[in-house]
Amino acid sequence: MLWNGRPNRLAGLSQADWAWQTLGMKHLLLSAVAAASLILPAHGAEPAPIPSPGEMAAAAAASDWIAIAPSDLLVMDLAPDAKGKTRRVVIQLMPAPFSQGWIGNIRKLAAAHWWDGTSVNRVQDNYVAQWGDATEKKALPAGLAAMTESEYVVSRAGAGGWHAARAMHNSAPIIPDPYASTQALWGWPVGHGKDGELWPVHCYGAVGVGRNMSPDTGSGAELYTVIGHAPRHLDRNIAVVGRVISGIEHLSSLPRGTGALGFYEDAAERVAIASIRVATELPAADQPRFEYLSTESDSFARYADARQNRRDPFFITPAGGADICNIPVPMRPVPVK
Amino acid sequence: MLWNGRPNRLAGLSQADWAWQTLGMKHLLLSAVAAASLILPAHGAEPAPIPSPGEMAAAAAASDWIAIAPSDLLVMDLAPDAKGKTRRVVIQLMPAPFSQGWIGNIRKLAAAHWWDGTSVNRVQDNYVAQWGDATEKKALPAGLAAMTESEYVVSRAGAGGWHAARAMHNSAPIIPDPYASTQALWGWPVGHGKDGELWPVHCYGAVGVGRNMSPDTGSGAELYTVIGHAPRHLDRNIAVVGRVISGIEHLSSLPRGTGALGFYEDAAERVAIASIRVATELPAADQPRFEYLSTESDSFARYADARQNRRDPFFITPAGGADICNIPVPMRPVPVK
Repeated sequence: MLWNGRPNRLAGLSQADWAWQTLGMKHLLLSAVAAASLILPAHGAEPAPIPSPGEMAAAAAASDWIAIAPSDLLVMDLAPDAKGKTRRVVIQLMPAPFSQGWIGNIRKLAAAHWWDGTSVNRVQDNYVAQWGDATEKKALPAGLAAMTESEYVVSRAGAGGWHAARAMHNSAPIIPDPYASTQALWGWPVGHGKDGELWPVHCYGAVGVGRNMSPDTGSGAELYTVIGHAPRHLDRNIAVVGRVISGIEHLSSLPRGTGALGFYEDAAERVAIASIRVATELPAADQPRFEYLSTESDSFARYADARQNRRDPFFITPAGGADICNIPVPMRPVPVK
Repeated sequence: MLWNGRPNRLAGLSQADWAWQTLGMKHLLLSAVAAASLILPAHGAEPAPIPSPGEMAAAAAASDWIAIAPSDLLVMDLAPDAKGKTRRVVIQLMPAPFSQGWIGNIRKLAAAHWWDGTSVNRVQDNYVAQWGDATEKKALPAGLAAMTESEYVVSRAGAGGWHAARAMHNSAPIIPDPYASTQALWGWPVGHGKDGELWPVHCYGAVGVGRNMSPDTGSGAELYTVIGHAPRHLDRNIAVVGRVISGIEHLSSLPRGTGALGFYEDAAERVAIASIRVATELPAADQPRFEYLSTESDSFARYADARQNRRDPFFITPAGGADICNIPVPMRPVPVK
């Protein structure tokens, strides 16, 4: 079977028969990884192959995984597909201090069951799938907040000062790219500004808030997710409120719209949304449970290094670097006990 | 209509009522673009809005567009979809000096009609769609070349020395990113090595050659295209032979495979390939015709600058940079006369 080498990132990771020793200092990682090809497995004979980044993440200690509160999960159930199969998309909402005004609105919209009966109206190849009220006439719930453009970024003080500084220090290295300096921080890809400000980054699967022309900032009722190469030019121009952590294929594999900007031209092409709920509103047995690999753990540092320098068997030339969107934070469903 | 600001890149670009003056020197571009908001349209009143990058490309002089020879186009016709609609994917093959051994094989495979009756067998979300012989038993045509791993990159001498140096000098700026220095060169995104070597880059839509473990380099019979965030860790590890320039939605919107690496588990899920031909083998009236914007033109330099610094009306904070895969070379069908 011909392939081209990529780790499975979610459920079903093969558990490498192989474990990392805990390293106290991140600067030892490179030499440790290089030496790994010399480690012999218990049965002798052949050197153990270097695990893929996904295998490394899967082998991380249970204590390195952080549970996502169901109150931070948004569950979107699309209408069943043509074959009657269910289509569930699970979105993790961003934590404070990012985009909290919009996220407060999204919680109100979900509590009001506002999206039930709305639809996915736009699917533009290599860009976004977007959903909301196609009529643009449905009344919004009372009490939604109006945000200002300054809230697309967070000042270091707004991020908690010392708290943010400690997290930055403990997290994986800062990676400069053509757009900004970037880092996986508090479990999310963020950009760093020259004056210490922070902002969430548009990677594949990021969920953002559609808006009209400036100074409009959007309410949160019109949402999109990225289904192509990271459109980083949208960073700081539009609010990022979360990311799809399961079921993105139900959006990314939809037919592309043939209208301007990928909007569906025929109302019959729209994909009906049965419901969107914060997970805590679902029956306990129906609540999705996920956890992510702490971006302050040594396990994440090793994983990030491995994404930047692929040494698992398929690869012959490690790149020597990777952009932040190519170091997705490992995520997995919590096993049923 | 809520939107989030992106130019249409292919057919149907709105022709801005607006034209750039020819600038002899690229270093004047930034100030010229900044001044553009002060340019008044013929009818007075409001300042003309700054055009989007796509509008800038569409406004480029006809002499800045380069026709793609039909002999460099590979036309893949999938079986019609469930509604009976045709599905045509057009691939531009890379020019010399890149990947020519594999491309020679691809020409032989197409001439032998080898892919007719094969299928798309793998669709992995945010990664690749891959096609070829699912049985892995179909005999290959005689006379295919075997390439070495050294051919994933091209030395500067191999790229023509002075010819390459001149093109680099005349092309848009070199952009360093976490993987390499990059540049749009001869109409393609390429990486630059420290010793002057060049290699093609895996951007969205790139077409590459599936292979087995090293030292296998693949024959060209098993191909894939990128349908997600640019997997740049594959650069220099696998041969890039072209890019999809039309119809990628017929691959990117296919159902994702549920097997390992996104392979379809059930043979019935595979998507049949009716035929793959070099365009010159098709009747003249059925040959697709495309042209791309010269990456050595001032028009491209302006377009690239605008992709890096979005100043069209939707944007409030230009990024100040863009990665090479977010500066796709403008492409358009040649109008029928």
